[in-house]
Amino acid sequence: MQINDLPTPALIIDADAFGRNLATMAATHPGRQLRPHVKAHKCTAIAAAQQAIGHDTFTCATPREILGMADAGVGVELLLANETVDDARLAAMADLDVPVIVAVDSDATVDAAARNGITTCLIDVNVGLPRCGIAPESAGRLAETARRAGLDVRGVMGYEGHLMMVPERADRLTAVEQSMELLLRAHGDVGGPIISAGGTGTFDLHDATGVTEVQAGSYALMDTHYGQQSLPFEQALFVIGTVISVSDGWSVADVGLKSLAMDHGNPTVVGGSVWFCSDEHLTSAPTDPQQVGDRVRVVPAHVDPTMAMHETAWVVRGDEVVDRWPIDLRGW
Amino acid sequence: MQINDLPTPALIIDADAFGRNLATMAATHPGRQLRPHVKAHKCTAIAAAQQAIGHDTFTCATPREILGMADAGVGVELLLANETVDDARLAAMADLDVPVIVAVDSDATVDAAARNGITTCLIDVNVGLPRCGIAPESAGRLAETARRAGLDVRGVMGYEGHLMMVPERADRLTAVEQSMELLLRAHGDVGGPIISAGGTGTFDLHDATGVTEVQAGSYALMDTHYGQQSLPFEQALFVIGTVISVSDGWSVADVGLKSLAMDHGNPTVVGGSVWFCSDEHLTSAPTDPQQVGDRVRVVPAHVDPTMAMHETAWVVRGDEVVDRWPIDLRGW
Repeated sequence: MQINDLPTPALIIDADAFGRNLATMAATHPGRQLRPHVKAHKCTAIAAAQQAIGHDTFTCATPREILGMADAGVGVELLLANETVDDARLAAMADLDVPVIVAVDSDATVDAAARNGITTCLIDVNVGLPRCGIAPESAGRLAETARRAGLDVRGVMGYEGHLMMVPERADRLTAVEQSMELLLRAHGDVGGPIISAGGTGTFDLHDATGVTEVQAGSYALMDTHYGQQSLPFEQALFVIGTVISVSDGWSVADVGLKSLAMDHGNPTVVGGSVWFCSDEHLTSAPTDPQQVGDRVRVVPAHVDPTMAMHETAWVVRGDEVVDRWPIDLRGW
Repeated sequence: MQINDLPTPALIIDADAFGRNLATMAATHPGRQLRPHVKAHKCTAIAAAQQAIGHDTFTCATPREILGMADAGVGVELLLANETVDDARLAAMADLDVPVIVAVDSDATVDAAARNGITTCLIDVNVGLPRCGIAPESAGRLAETARRAGLDVRGVMGYEGHLMMVPERADRLTAVEQSMELLLRAHGDVGGPIISAGGTGTFDLHDATGVTEVQAGSYALMDTHYGQQSLPFEQALFVIGTVISVSDGWSVADVGLKSLAMDHGNPTVVGGSVWFCSDEHLTSAPTDPQQVGDRVRVVPAHVDPTMAMHETAWVVRGDEVVDRWPIDLRGW
């Protein structure tokens, strides 16, 4: 099958670019120095490729991702890098054969984990992003609480998400090092072998931060947002559309905002300039004249939620479709 | 089951508000004066409720919506108010027992419809929104082409989407009437019994425009975007989240941008002020102190793509969950 045979909108992954991205990351962070974040792709086939190149521990954002990874048999240790107090989901994760670590940042999340049979946790520390994570100075106290509740506290995590898009690398490095000082101080009070942090935008800024593993995910497929950052990763993800209408000055493809995450703004389109997206349409001014039936290649602005909108990713090499990967970790 | 028993994020529909919205619209546009747009909800159970109140013809945006509606046996006539040149999908729609009308706006879309067994079409006319639709002055010529190709041309459609959010009702009315003059002029050249247009934002501005039916969809559930417009419809759609982390000044719920469309900006949250959304998180400043485990009610900014992100809508009356509706028309 060729790309032009796919029904559209069609999510495609360039196999060669994807492979190079995995190799580039594995060269910087081999093995367990990277704990790939599956929230970026929600696809066990991609996780299996990450495992095949040497990363066999994984980061997840939802219990469904944990359960789906376990079901697919991918990963030897799974981290839920997020808080939950859902008894049924915690109990389901506790029942798995694969070791599961859950993040906790409060007495309530410790209690919920312990009462549902979870045995292992990380203390989630606020390193500057106003989201989850306990204040660094309280991390030690929470670790004590967790240990009293019977949990094995394996260390700390802290996500410097607010620093991913600092434009200049030198500024980003300084900010990351300051942020990670908070995490290391907390770790001094908490203990344990794991200091987990980082993302695609800061993947190569942790040489001197003391973290033991990086949680990057977007690097495997990339998007136009991270594409601004002079990172050594290539765009490997596209949405293919069909031109369904051509007018004087613009054309319309069947790639709308139900198939493209819009939280980082409009996508870009190869060979054209995007005007706007509607539910089922992308209106753009093409560089060269287009005809109804032509195919267009759209580059998403944000990889994670774009993946979550599709049932299937088609893997391509050149114009040939070589595989079909279900996006099997969607939903909650 | 109570709302608080639902795993989160959970999409809920307030049954009473939904019922009142359907009744309000049916009072203005009874029966076939409304051709409800299923792209707004992608849910055959909602379409069935719209049919039960008197609307038995429907508008769809994708072939999958047409095929799913036919499979569910909802609707006596289905309009694909969108262009496609996908042979397999056109042939599948042509094979249905329920009558299907497809929009065409070019020779290529006429050819594709005719060669795949489609028998009935509307001429899609550009009435000012730079998207699909032929220039009004060319509509008559295209109708002739369609008739020569063997298609039964049932009339015209034109979507004045660019006017939905004109702030003042009087200005909106004037603009809608001017836009619909383009459609009527095209209809003069095309002929046929159907003049289809309109949406939720202009649903009550067509008394004098000459259209025979209105295509509104969002009115049934609503969102904060249309909520700015002093329309007589109530917010019936919410996403319920659980507070998973509380810090000094903000709290975090498990309703992220994978469960909320972001193309119209941030959602709102009852009892708080939204700071930002991440993939799996909503950070907000609560009005009153919150605790981990509290439930929050989030109001989406854009109904259509929010529905498309969820597998299930839970129907509630007060705090009680009274039904579960699959969002069964998702995907392509």
